[in-house]
Amino acid sequence: MQENISNTAENMYKLAENLWSYNRSITGDGVRKTLSAIKKIIPDLQIVEVPSGKKVFNWVVPQEWVVRSAYIKTPDGRKICDFEKNNLHLVGYSSPINTCISLKELKKKLYSLPEMPEAIPYLTSYYKKQWGFCISEKEKDSLPEGDYEVYIDSEFIEGSLTYGEILVKGNIDKEVFMSTYICHPSMANNELSGICVTTFLAKYLTERKDLRYSYRIIFIPETIGSITYLSQNLEILKSNVIAGYNITCVGDDRNFSYLPSRNGNTLSDYVAKHVLLHEVGDYISYEWRDRGSDERQYCWPGIDLPIASMMRTKYGKYKEYHTSLDALGSVVTPKGLLGAYNIYCAALHIIERNCYPVVTTLCEPFLSRWNLYPELGNKVGVADARLLIDILSWCDGKNSVLDIADRCKCYAIKVIDNLEIAAKAGLVNLDKKRLYNN
Amino acid sequence: MQENISNTAENMYKLAENLWSYNRSITGDGVRKTLSAIKKIIPDLQIVEVPSGKKVFNWVVPQEWVVRSAYIKTPDGRKICDFEKNNLHLVGYSSPINTCISLKELKKKLYSLPEMPEAIPYLTSYYKKQWGFCISEKEKDSLPEGDYEVYIDSEFIEGSLTYGEILVKGNIDKEVFMSTYICHPSMANNELSGICVTTFLAKYLTERKDLRYSYRIIFIPETIGSITYLSQNLEILKSNVIAGYNITCVGDDRNFSYLPSRNGNTLSDYVAKHVLLHEVGDYISYEWRDRGSDERQYCWPGIDLPIASMMRTKYGKYKEYHTSLDALGSVVTPKGLLGAYNIYCAALHIIERNCYPVVTTLCEPFLSRWNLYPELGNKVGVADARLLIDILSWCDGKNSVLDIADRCKCYAIKVIDNLEIAAKAGLVNLDKKRLYNN
Amino acid sequence: MQENISNTAENMYKLAENLWSYNRSITGDGVRKTLSAIKKIIPDLQIVEVPSGKKVFNWVVPQEWVVRSAYIKTPDGRKICDFEKNNLHLVGYSSPINTCISLKELKKKLYSLPEMPEAIPYLTSYYKKQWGFCISEKEKDSLPEGDYEVYIDSEFIEGSLTYGEILVKGNIDKEVFMSTYICHPSMANNELSGICVTTFLAKYLTERKDLRYSYRIIFIPETIGSITYLSQNLEILKSNVIAGYNITCVGDDRNFSYLPSRNGNTLSDYVAKHVLLHEVGDYISYEWRDRGSDERQYCWPGIDLPIASMMRTKYGKYKEYHTSLDALGSVVTPKGLLGAYNIYCAALHIIERNCYPVVTTLCEPFLSRWNLYPELGNKVGVADARLLIDILSWCDGKNSVLDIADRCKCYAIKVIDNLEIAAKAGLVNLDKKRLYNN
Repeated sequence: MQENISNTAENMYKLAENLWSYNRSITGDGVRKTLSAIKKIIPDLQIVEVPSGKKVFNWVVPQEWVVRSAYIKTPDGRKICDFEKNNLHLVGYSSPINTCISLKELKKKLYSLPEMPEAIPYLTSYYKKQWGFCISEKEKDSLPEGDYEVYIDSEFIEGSLTYGEILVKGNIDKEVFMSTYICHPSMANNELSGICVTTFLAKYLTERKDLRYSYRIIFIPETIGSITYLSQNLEILKSNVIAGYNITCVGDDRNFSYLPSRNGNTLSDYVAKHVLLHEVGDYISYEWRDRGSDERQYCWPGIDLPIASMMRTKYGKYKEYHTSLDALGSVVTPKGLLGAYNIYCAALHIIERNCYPVVTTLCEPFLSRWNLYPELGNKVGVADARLLIDILSWCDGKNSVLDIADRCKCYAIKVIDNLEIAAKAGLVNLDKKRLYNN
Repeated sequence: MQENISNTAENMYKLAENLWSYNRSITGDGVRKTLSAIKKIIPDLQIVEVPSGKKVFNWVVPQEWVVRSAYIKTPDGRKICDFEKNNLHLVGYSSPINTCISLKELKKKLYSLPEMPEAIPYLTSYYKKQWGFCISEKEKDSLPEGDYEVYIDSEFIEGSLTYGEILVKGNIDKEVFMSTYICHPSMANNELSGICVTTFLAKYLTERKDLRYSYRIIFIPETIGSITYLSQNLEILKSNVIAGYNITCVGDDRNFSYLPSRNGNTLSDYVAKHVLLHEVGDYISYEWRDRGSDERQYCWPGIDLPIASMMRTKYGKYKEYHTSLDALGSVVTPKGLLGAYNIYCAALHIIERNCYPVVTTLCEPFLSRWNLYPELGNKVGVADARLLIDILSWCDGKNSVLDIADRCKCYAIKVIDNLEIAAKAGLVNLDKKRLYNN
Repeated sequence: MQENISNTAENMYKLAENLWSYNRSITGDGVRKTLSAIKKIIPDLQIVEVPSGKKVFNWVVPQEWVVRSAYIKTPDGRKICDFEKNNLHLVGYSSPINTCISLKELKKKLYSLPEMPEAIPYLTSYYKKQWGFCISEKEKDSLPEGDYEVYIDSEFIEGSLTYGEILVKGNIDKEVFMSTYICHPSMANNELSGICVTTFLAKYLTERKDLRYSYRIIFIPETIGSITYLSQNLEILKSNVIAGYNITCVGDDRNFSYLPSRNGNTLSDYVAKHVLLHEVGDYISYEWRDRGSDERQYCWPGIDLPIASMMRTKYGKYKEYHTSLDALGSVVTPKGLLGAYNIYCAALHIIERNCYPVVTTLCEPFLSRWNLYPELGNKVGVADARLLIDILSWCDGKNSVLDIADRCKCYAIKVIDNLEIAAKAGLVNLDKKRLYNN
C-alpha cells in the first residue's frame, strides 16, 4: 500500500514529464496527443470531437489552431522565440505571418515581464485575431538594432474541439463529477498537475469494485470546453451529479486551499472543508469572488452543479503563475502531487460513505454484549468506547456522517470506521438512509 | 446637478429659518402655519383636521391649545420668560393663569437645567393640566426677592389636530411611507430638520416622472399624530407599504446613525444599513430598545409597518437636545441637512430599483459579442468586466439587488448601474421579478 | 419566607447527614432505606420494585447485591477496609470471598489513588463478577508483609431494582420531569446532593396549589435505573414531558454549570441558560460531549426528551470526585445546596409562566388611563414604565416570555411580573397562547 502510494506519486510526476512539451491549446493536436497519453493509463477514456463552428449556448466552438513552426530571426541570424524549443514563446492562437520588421516594430509584438526578467510569460488571444511572441525581459533587452525576420507558420482550420471523458459505473446512477483542463502548454502547476492527479484518480476508481456512485471525469479545454460539455450534457448532469470538483493547481507542495461552489453549501463544499481541516488544518479558504476556472460555468445560475475545488497553491497566487517558471521540479513535485491526490481520495471516500445513520437501540447499547466494551485496562473491540457512544448518540437519522463528525470534533473517516464496526454489531442502520446529499 | 444639490442644502436651511419662530405643538395655529409654508414648496400637500375628542385607538385627540400671550413680570417690572420672544419659555399645554406670587412660590413653577446654565429647557404637559415656565439656570439665579406677576393667556378649545399628507403616485400602488413631526417648537435638529429634509424629499419625488412605487409622506404631531393617522389609514398602510422611514434628527453634521424597525429585518432596514455602510462607513447602530419616536407606533404589534430611521445625531444623544441650544447654525447646518437628504435619496433609489434579477444565458456570456468586454489595455463597455460577471453570477432569481451587492462587497447603486447595462444587452431580466420585498 | 429558605438549606443538609451511611448501590437495601427516608418528607412517593432479570431495552435488570459484612485482617490482626466503617472500601458488586493471601496477591485487589494519598476511591464492577477493596494510598503503603485474611460476605439474589416516583398533578397533563440518582454510597456532591435538592423541590411542588404543569420526579439508580424507567414509561414521557432536568452535583458552593440536552435547543436549555445568566452570570457551559449522567439515556435518539442539567461543580471536574473526600461539610454545604435549589425554583417558575403574550391595543397604551404611568417625580403603578412598554412592544404572539426577556436584556422573572400587572389592566392577553414550548 505504502509502495503503491509512492508509486502513484512517481507515476503522476512521470506523466507530467511525458506531457510537458506538447503544444496544448483549446484545440489542436497538442490536445489530442495529451489525451492519447492519458488513454494509455485509463483505457476506457472516450475521446470526443466537437466540430468548429458549433453553437454552444451563447458561444461558438472556435476554429482549430494548427502551428507548424514559429520563430524570429535576429539581424545576426540567430533564431529566437523558437516555438520548437518552448511553445510559450508564441502567443496562443497567433495568426500566420512572414515578414521582416525593425526592432522598434517588433517590440510592439513582444510580451515580457519587467518584474520577472528571466520568465517567459504565457499569453493567448483566442477570440481576436492577432500575433505576438513572449520572451524574457532579459533576452528582449539584449536584442540588437536591425531588421528581424518574423515567421509564424500557423493556420486556422475547420477542425474540432477535442476532449476526453470517462464514466466509471457504480451501483447507482447518481454521479460524482470531476473536471480538469488540457489547454495549458508547458506549465506545471497550472496546468499539468490537474491532468496528472485526475488521471490517477480515474485509474484508482476504475480499479475499485465496490463503488456506490458513478464517477464522471472529463479532460477539457478551460471555459470553451466546459461550456461545450455542459451544452451537450446538461440534463444528465443536473439530474445525476451529487458532488464534484474542478481539479486545478494540485502540484506544488506549498499550500492547500479551498474554493467554494457559488453558494458554498453543497456536499462537495462540506466534504472539502472537512477533509482539509482534518488532513491539513491550516488551509487557505477562498471565496466565490476569487474563482477563475470552470466552476465559473458549472455553478452559473441555471446550471448550479455542486462543484468546488481543493487546490494546492491557487492560480494567480504564486509568483511563477502563467510563466515559464511554473516548472516541473522547481514548482511541482511528486510530493506536491501526492498531497493533492490523497485529499481527493479522502474526499471521495467520505462522499461514498456519507449517509444518515439511525441507531437500532432505544438507549445506550450495553456494549459488553457485543464485546465492544473495553475490559478494565484492556481495551478491545473498539479503540475508544466513549467515542463510539458519542457517535451513536447522534445517529438519529437527521445527522449525516459529516454532521456527526463535526459534532464529535472527529475526522469523518474515523466516524465511518466506528460506524462500520457498530453496523456489523447491528447497533446502527447505515443502509436505510444512505443519502447522497445534505 | 451640483448646483441643484447645493441649492437644496440652502433651500432646506432657509425653510428652517422661516419656520423657526412658529409655536409648534401637537395642535394649534403654529402647526397650521408650518403646514402652509410647506404647501408653498409642495403644492399638492393636503392639510387634514381631526376634531378634538375623537377616539383614536385607546387614545383621544386632545383639545386645541391656544396661546395669545405669556410672560412673568419681575418685582422691578421687567418682563421675563416672554413667550413672544421664545416659545420654549412656556411649558407646552400650560393652563391659563393671571396671578401674583412670591419668588419662592414662582420657583416651584420654573424649570431650568443646572448643568447647562445658559439653556432654556423644553417641557410639555399634554395630558395633565398644569402651568409652568422654562428659564435658563443663570437667569433664574439672578431673580430678586419680591412678588411676581404671572400671566398666561391660553385657552383649550374644541378644535382639531392638524396634519399634512401627500401621496405621490408611481406606477404601482405599493408605497414607500415617510413620516416626520411638526410638534416641536423652536429647536433645530429635533425637530425642524425632519420637516425640512422631508419637504425637499417630497419635492424631489413630485418632480420625478419615472417612479415605480407610490410615496406617502406625512407631517404630523409626534405620538398622538401617528396614532391618529394609523387609526384612520391602517388598512391601506398594511396592504400597501413596502418600506419607509421615520425622519427625525437629520440636521447636524456630527454623526450618522440607524435605528431599526422592531424586528430589524425589513427592506427599510437592509437598505438603511447598506446605504450607511457604503456612503458613510462608520455610523452608529442603535437597537429597538433605543427608540423614541413614531416607530414606536408604526412597528407596534399588529401594526408592524416596515419603518426604520436613518438619522444624523439621534435625539437624546447630544447635549443641546431639548433645549434652546439646539439651534440653527450652531447645531443644524446646510451641510448637515444635505448629508441626510443625500442618504435618503440613495435609499429611495435603491428601493426603487431593487429586484430579483435573472440571467438569460446558461453560462458566462461571451462579452465581446455585446461589446462589453474590455479590449486589451482599452477598457470599454463596462468599467470592470470582472465585476459585471460577478454580479451576473448571482442573478439566479433568489438574490435581490441588495443581496448581490452584499455578496460582491459593492455598493448597490453600482450593482444597479451594471445591471442596467446588462439588461440593455439582454443578458439579464430585471422586469420579471421586480419585487419589492425580501 | 427568608426563614423558610434558611430552613430549606438546613433541612436539605440534615437529610444528607441522615442518608450518609446507607450502602446505596444500583440495587439493594441501601436504596430502600434511602427511599423510605425521602418518603417521610414527601409522603406521596411511590416505591417501585422491578424484578431482577427483567429485560429493559437491550439491558437486563441485574441481580440484587446483598452485603452483610466485608473486611481484611492484617497479619497483626487489625481489621482494615471495613465495610461497616465506610462502604466505599468495598468495590461495588463485589463477589463473596473468604480466603487468606499474601500482601503481594492482596495488592492486586486493592485500589488506591497515588496522587491523593488520603482518599479512598469509589469503584464498582456491576457487570463483571470480581471482588476488590478500595483503600487510601497512605494506608496501603503502611501494610506489613504477611498473610491477609480477606472476607466478603456478599450474595447475588433474584431480587429487584428499586426506585421512587412521585407525580404532582397540575392543571394540565403536560409534565416537567426531574430525575436524580440514588446509587452512589457515602459521597456528598456526587451524589447525596441531587437526592436532597430534588426531595425538597418535590416537597415545594406538593405544597403549591396553583401548578399549571404536572411534575414527575424520580429517584433511580443511574443508567440501569433510567433505562428501566424509560422502558416502562416511554410513551407517556414522550407525549407529556415538555421540559425537565437531570439533577446531580448540586451541593458544593464553588461553581454553577450547565450541561445541554443533545441538541441544546429545548425549553429546558433556554430556561437553564437564562436563569444561570441572570442569577449567576459567570457559569460554566458544557457540551453534550461532556455528559455523563442519565441525560445519556433521556436524550438518546428515539427517546429525545428535553432534559438538561444545571449543576454546581460537575462530576469529574473537582478533585474530590468519586473519593471519600467528596464529603459533607468540606465539599457540600447548606449554602451550596440552597444555591442549586434556588436556581431550580427560578427555572420552574419561568417554565410555569412562559407563554406567548399578545397585546390588546393597536398602539402604545395611554398608560395614564390605567394608572400605570409614573407621575412626574412620583413613580407609581409600575416601577419602570419604559420597561413595561418595551416588554409590551414584543408581545406579538411570536415571542415567548423568554424571548422577550432576552430582547429586553431583562430577567424573565421581571418580565413575568410586568406582564402580570399589564394583564390585570387588560393590556395583554397571557391566556390565549400560554404554550409550553418554543
